[in-house]
Order: sequence, then structure tokens, then C-alpha cells
Amino acid sequence: MIRLIVAALSALLCSLSVAPAQTAQPSAGPVPAAALEDLVLANRILADRGVLDAYGHISIRHPADPNRYLMARAIAPGLVTLDDIMELDLDSNPVARRGRSLFVERFIHGEIYKARPDVMAVIHTHSTGVIPFSVTQKELKPIFHNASFLHVGVPVWESRDGFGATKMLVNDGKLGASLAAALGNKPVALMRGHGDVVVGPNVRVATLRAVYTDENARMLATALSIGGPVNTVSPAEGALRDKDPSDPTRTWELWKANVLKKEH
Amino acid sequence: MIRLIVAALSALLCSLSVAPAQTAQPSAGPVPAAALEDLVLANRILADRGVLDAYGHISIRHPADPNRYLMARAIAPGLVTLDDIMELDLDSNPVARRGRSLFVERFIHGEIYKARPDVMAVIHTHSTGVIPFSVTQKELKPIFHNASFLHVGVPVWESRDGFGATKMLVNDGKLGASLAAALGNKPVALMRGHGDVVVGPNVRVATLRAVYTDENARMLATALSIGGPVNTVSPAEGALRDKDPSDPTRTWELWKANVLKKEH
Amino acid sequence: MIRLIVAALSALLCSLSVAPAQTAQPSAGPVPAAALEDLVLANRILADRGVLDAYGHISIRHPADPNRYLMARAIAPGLVTLDDIMELDLDSNPVARRGRSLFVERFIHGEIYKARPDVMAVIHTHSTGVIPFSVTQKELKPIFHNASFLHVGVPVWESRDGFGATKMLVNDGKLGASLAAALGNKPVALMRGHGDVVVGPNVRVATLRAVYTDENARMLATALSIGGPVNTVSPAEGALRDKDPSDPTRTWELWKANVLKKEH
Amino acid sequence: MIRLIVAALSALLCSLSVAPAQTAQPSAGPVPAAALEDLVLANRILADRGVLDAYGHISIRHPADPNRYLMARAIAPGLVTLDDIMELDLDSNPVARRGRSLFVERFIHGEIYKARPDVMAVIHTHSTGVIPFSVTQKELKPIFHNASFLHVGVPVWESRDGFGATKMLVNDGKLGASLAAALGNKPVALMRGHGDVVVGPNVRVATLRAVYTDENARMLATALSIGGPVNTVSPAEGALRDKDPSDPTRTWELWKANVLKKEH
Repeated sequence: MIRLIVAALSALLCSLSVAPAQTAQPSAGPVPAAALEDLVLANRILADRGVLDAYGHISIRHPADPNRYLMARAIAPGLVTLDDIMELDLDSNPVARRGRSLFVERFIHGEIYKARPDVMAVIHTHSTGVIPFSVTQKELKPIFHNASFLHVGVPVWESRDGFGATKMLVNDGKLGASLAAALGNKPVALMRGHGDVVVGPNVRVATLRAVYTDENARMLATALSIGGPVNTVSPAEGALRDKDPSDPTRTWELWKANVLKKEH
Repeated sequence: MIRLIVAALSALLCSLSVAPAQTAQPSAGPVPAAALEDLVLANRILADRGVLDAYGHISIRHPADPNRYLMARAIAPGLVTLDDIMELDLDSNPVARRGRSLFVERFIHGEIYKARPDVMAVIHTHSTGVIPFSVTQKELKPIFHNASFLHVGVPVWESRDGFGATKMLVNDGKLGASLAAALGNKPVALMRGHGDVVVGPNVRVATLRAVYTDENARMLATALSIGGPVNTVSPAEGALRDKDPSDPTRTWELWKANVLKKEH
Repeated sequence: MIRLIVAALSALLCSLSVAPAQTAQPSAGPVPAAALEDLVLANRILADRGVLDAYGHISIRHPADPNRYLMARAIAPGLVTLDDIMELDLDSNPVARRGRSLFVERFIHGEIYKARPDVMAVIHTHSTGVIPFSVTQKELKPIFHNASFLHVGVPVWESRDGFGATKMLVNDGKLGASLAAALGNKPVALMRGHGDVVVGPNVRVATLRAVYTDENARMLATALSIGGPVNTVSPAEGALRDKDPSDPTRTWELWKANVLKKEH
Repeated sequence: MIRLIVAALSALLCSLSVAPAQTAQPSAGPVPAAALEDLVLANRILADRGVLDAYGHISIRHPADPNRYLMARAIAPGLVTLDDIMELDLDSNPVARRGRSLFVERFIHGEIYKARPDVMAVIHTHSTGVIPFSVTQKELKPIFHNASFLHVGVPVWESRDGFGATKMLVNDGKLGASLAAALGNKPVALMRGHGDVVVGPNVRVATLRAVYTDENARMLATALSIGGPVNTVSPAEGALRDKDPSDPTRTWELWKANVLKKEH
């Protein structure tokens, strides 16, 4: 598949023009190829690492317009290529639908971008490490320094609180806005019986956070099964680390190389 | 191995005629190649994902005759090719044995097709996530929305209740009928100390159900080891989701691509 | 590596003559190539499945002489080829050492062959699923029908009982004889803080037993962590299944294909 | 990537001269190619086995000068090649920086080499098996004979004891010296909420220790979740085994072959 990426990138050289709009929405214009390549790779990386299954999704805010975001058409993350990327407005309407299926839960992304001007990337996962913490009363606290960003707390969004019984999908703007409100100013929120949403200042940091949130959750479950009190990362430690976080280049280069090696 | 599939499909073009019957049973006629390809792929997909081990099996009801079903000869699911598929009647007699070995537990399939006219595909697994729930008193309840179909309950079939000590194999029609009765109108039943049986309206949905039943069981075991009450998917949520279930195309395309990539 | 096997097999055609003895022991004569190929494959299969790590080993009794057995020189099982196989007597002396290193724990094999005329294959593993049961007081009971052979009980050999503090290695005949006595007439015995020993009427059955003993142990640990009583396979069920056990051809063909696919 | 290793080794033939120093530090001179190759392979092996993630690191003491050590520039261990290896003094200053980024936690290595003249290799991991034992009150004791070296005790270094809230990184000599003091004369110390540090008389033994420390921790967590008292390797057994430890050649040859097979 990497040949598809390379071929597409060669053709595009340094920018992608979204096809002429077939709706009222004008496009916010071309997106740098490097940003799109990162978005595609984030999909492949999180699929490769088992953090995303067939149904998760990733978006980035449009670099040139805070009122647009970019996300694949409805397709498994492990299969996403450049050609699948679409532009949407913050009400999660596509600029140019071109007959494609959209993720029914795209409202997660649009509503978070509305509520959080600092957020440039959003990831929604069904990560199997975190789901047990979404249905029990034990809080998902950081025990590993690479997940210290969780020190601010990890809210659990319960759709039943505001909406009663639903299909358990964030399939409209109201549900998305409720989830965004639960997330508040945090990097991660759990969705009860569903997964989590992870945000960041760029897609590489959001990817790193999705990976380490899952890994921290697995190790915390083991620590709890061992028994006794668990010594968590303190808020003071977390705050110091927030000022000088782990370098996402280190993880990105490794995880990218692992994906490319398998696809070669 | 995929070359075998491709070669076989090319030769058949769009249908497969089962070889002339060597028994009294007449064949129900050719099966569309797409249906057979899905059956073969379901075997490979579930083997690839570790849901089927060397001894599980998958069948589909004959598209043209509700009194016939199609299943591989006795061979590990990870090795099944088109040429291994056989036609059986609902008493699990082969239309044309051609000297081949049959699964001794094929009666699971025949008896469920008799009892459940809505069922078009049956999967029997030794899935390691579910077996612990077949031997403990904790119910396998859904905690993950993609497994919400479990909200109707997951019966545990205990062969000792009706049959005393056995070889723990469903190797005749009486045992198969007992299992089918335990399954009732549900999508999944556990078999104590053995595995589970998963049914669906087609093989793609049944495959998805087998995967998410196993995944839900693993996450529930983790939630239980964390301790405290577990917040399950409610019957009301499950019922709403049943009307608009997860799209099996998304999982199928991904899981198929993963299998083909490894076999290339 | 499979090319090494094929090349070696082509050269040998149908038998292997062990090189002229450099010690007093005469060779028991050539071994059928198929038996040697199974021994080599069993090493690769159990390494591939994670049942053997760098230090385990597998032997078969010499088909032509009950007082000889065949085992690789001291090398990780995942790297064993035909050329590594050596012939030893039941005191675990090599017929022809040829300057090679031997497993220091080969006495496990020799002493079991002395004590158990029915046994034709012996496997010693450090299988990570079973070791927790060698150091706790919970018995390793069968909960899965493919491991029903454990119904006769799984002794735990404690080297400290007869020998006090040791290096925890079965590095002489006395320790080997003690282990063989603990095994008695059973198919599997655990070695405290070390692993297990698994025997069978041939190497394919012993391989299957080693795999399902490990898998059963992992599922039992999960069942115990879920809590409450655990419903085990009954002695009556186990005895019935012993008379008609799972077909090792099914597992062997799959596991062999998996190994060959990776080595190609 | 193995081609990179081979090409580099061919060019170097049997030694590597570190480039002319751009700082006041003189180089301790060339390092045998075999030593460097082992260092590179240890990085790949521990990445392949999941013991090192993107952020761990490995060093060896300079064979010709006890006041120098060799370690990769700041890069994920799974991507390390010969060209990344740098020479540092025991205050962790590079002999020739050449514009490269250094691991911020290199002081772990320098301070341990100062405190432990017997140590020739140091590994720092975020090994997910051990981290739960760094945040609970259950001691990481050996239950598996291949991890018997843990019988002397596994200290847990708590940075908060001496330094209060920090970024949880060993990013200066004082923190490194504190960790080295906690390690004392032991082979392994845990770092609370972070990982561990593993030392040895050479990089192959240190690699083996890092692997079996992680594996022992995972099995101990399972044993604890099963419940009841756990039967550990006794100090007397551990002391006997220390005199005749497991042969690291066996593991090294296997793990190296596994890495090369995947990189081919």
C-alpha cells in the first residue's frame, strides 16, 4: 500500500486540492502534503498497534481554516489512503461528498473542534485496554510517566445521563456536543461501553497519547489485579512533565518504520 | 494460498457445481461463487484472528435450498480452500462424500439450521476468550457496543444436564438438537468447557459476532479482575442497536485485506 | 530454513545413518526420515507457538531400539535442523558426541524413557502459561475438552523435597529419575518454578498436549481471576475422551503450514 | 536494515574509529566490531521482543577504557544502526557530538558505570511487565529459574524520596547517582512509574536478564491473580544458580536469528 501513498504524493508534489464542491460549502483550499501524509500514517500506525479496530477514526483540523477538518471517508483505518481523505465543516457536513459514505460518528470530531480551539487532531478509538475502565468504578489514573498527561483526570462520558437509551453511537451534533462538554479541557475522555476520544495539538502527539493511554490502562489493570494500593503519577509530576513532554518524533519514526516494513 | 482461491474462482467463473452425487441425496444445485468465497474467507479470517483454532468450523445454508448446508471437509479452518467445501443435508449427511472425512461435530450446524429458519450461517469456535465464561458462574454480558447483540442473554449449554458424561463432542443429532434448543432464538450460546456457537443472517455478520463476542469476553474478564460492579449495555440500548447494527462491510474488507496480505 | 530441511531430506531420501560412533556405544541404526522430520518440525512448531523458549527440548524414542532416543544437540528449538539430531542411550550418553554440546537436562528424557515403556516422545517446556500453576496451590485442572487428558491429575515435582537447594536443573540421572517418578503414569507433570514435562505415544500427540496444556492453564488462570467455583472436566468425561482423543493430524497440518509459511 | 549492518561491518572490517573529537574529550580509541555489532543487535532484539519501546536505551562500557561508554544517539532502539553509536565519558558528555541529539537520561548509564566497576552493559527499559510492580507493594520476586538472579532482591527507586516532584526523568548526574545507589550491587532495579534498569557483565547477559525479568514479572502477576501463597525461588537456589547461570549464547543466537529473519 505504501506504493499508493508514494504515487499519490509524487503526483501531488506539495499540496492537495479537494475536488470542486458539489454542495454549498466552499473548500478551505489545499492542504500541505506532509499534513495529509501524517494523517494517513496515523491511521495505519494505530491500526498496526491494535489501538484502532475496524471502526475508529482520526481527523486533523484544516491548517488553513479552523472551521474545517479532514478525515477519511467511512473505511477501516488500516485501509486509509490519501484518496480517502475528505474535508468537512464543523457541523460535520462534507464540502464535497462525491457519493461517499461518511462516518456516522463524525460529530465527535466537529463538536470537539468547535469547543476546543487549541485542538488540532482528534482520535476516536475502541481501544481494548481502556474499555474496562469505562464500565467499572476504578478511575483511569496514570501510573506510567509516558501517560502522565492523564494526571488532569479522565472523564467518563455516559450517554445515558443526557440521552437515555441510545444506539450508543455519537451520530448527531447534540451527542457530539455533550461528549465535547464532558471532555472539557482534558486530553482524553472515556466513552462508557464504547472507547475513548483523544485530542492533541497535532496528530503525532494525539497518536502518542492514544497509544500510551491504552498501555497505561493495561498496566493499571494488572496493578489492580496484583492488589493493594497503587502509587500513581502525582499531579505535581504530571504538571512538570506537561511542560516538557515526551518527544513524539521518537515514537513516530519508529511506528512509521514498522508500518512501512510490513507493507513493503 | 490466495492463488489457489483465485485459480479456482477463475475456473468456476460464477458458480460451482458439486460433483455428481455418490449417495441417494441429490444436490441442491450450484452455489454462487461469491457465497463460496465468503465462506472460505470466513475460515481464513477467523483463523487469522485466533478465534478459530485447528478444530472449529463454519457453515452457510445453501442459498437455493434451506434443507442443505455447505461446510468444509474435516480440515483446520486456516487451511480451507474452495475445493474443500461439501454439501450436506440437515441430518448432516453429505450429498457426495467422495471418500472425505467429515467434521464429527457437523450436527451442531444441521440441527441449528432445522431449528432456526432465520439462520443462514453457523460458526463453532474454541475461542479462548469465551471458554472461561463457560466454566464460571459470571454471565457473559455485553460491555462493548459492538457486542450489544449479547443483550438478549448468552445461554450456557451443559452437555451433562441431558446426557451425563460424554466425550464432550456434539457428535450426533440428539446432542446437536439439545444445543440448538439451548441456543433458542439467541445469536450466541456457550458450550461448557468447549467453546461457543454463533449464528447470523449471513456469514459476514456471523464472523463479526464471533470476533466481538470473544473481544467482549476478554474485556469483561479484565473488568471483573479490576473489581466492583460492571456497567453493562442495557437491554434497551441493545434493542435499539439491533435495529441498526454495525456495518459488517467495514470489518470484512479490513479482515480480508489482512488475510490476503499475509498469504501473498 | 525450510530449504535446509528439504535439501537434507532429498539427500537422505528415506533414512539417516548416524555417523560412525566415536564412543563405546553402537548406534541402533538408521531412523526413518519421516520420524526425524516430525522431530525437527515439532521443535519449530512449539517455538513458533511460544510453548518452547530458547531452552526447552524435545526427544523421540528410537523407532528401532527402545534403549535409544533422539534429540537435538544443545541449541534453541526454533533453530533445530536435521543435522542437529543426535542419538543417546537411556543414561543420556551420546552414541557419537562429535564435539557437540548436549542439553544439560537431557536426563529428563532418558529417565522417563526408562520408567515409561509406553512413552515414545518427551517434551520439556518453560511454557509461561503453566509456570504460575507450578508455584501456587491451585491445581492445574482441565476446563477445556482438548486438554481433557489432564483429568488424571497433574503432579507438581518439587526438587527441594528430595534434593534441597539445587541449581533448579535436572542435570543428572538421579534428578531425572525423581522427576520420572513424580510423573508416574500421567501425561504431564509440572516442575516447580521451571516448567513442565509432557509425554505421548508419538511426537505429534505430545506436541498437541504441550500446546493445549499451556492454553488450558491460561484459560484457567482467567477463570480463577473472574472468581467463584470453576466447573472442570470430570474424570468420567476425561476417561471417555481418552478412548477417542482429538485427531493430531488436524493440528499438525495447520501448525506445520504456519511454520513453513513464515520460513519461506 | 540488516544490509546496513553488513555494509557498515564490511567497510569497517574489524574496528571502528570514532570521528575526530570536536570537544576537549579525547576518544578512548577504536572498538572491536563484534562488540559494536552486539550492541546494535541488543537494541533490535529487545525492540523485537517488546522489552524496549521507543524510548529505552542500551550501553556498553568501552572495552579499552573503563571511563568511557558507548550508546546510540537519541533514536528508537528498533532503528539503531552502527552509525548511530557514540562514545561518552562517565559524566555522560559525548566525545564528539557531531550535532546529534543525546538521550536525556544517559546519566543512568554514566552513573552506574562510575558506581559499579563490574558492570559492562546497562539497559534501561519501559518493560510493561515490570511497571505494575514498580507502583504496588508486592515485591518482584523470582518464580522462574531463568530469573533466579532476582533472588538478591529488586529495589524500587522512588525519585520522590530524594527529589520531590520531578519530570520523572533521570536527566542529570544527581538523579543518576541516586538511582545507581538504589541499585547497589544488584542486577536489576525498578524505577517507580517508569520502568527498570538492568546491568550485566556483558550485553548478552544484560539482554537475557531484561527479557527474563519481564517474563518473570508477567508470570508472577498471573500467580498473584490466581491467589494464595506464591512459592518463590529461594536465596539458596538463586545463589547456586548464580555460579552456573543460563548460557546466553542459546538465547542470543535464537533472538538474533528472529531479528534477521524479519529484517531480511
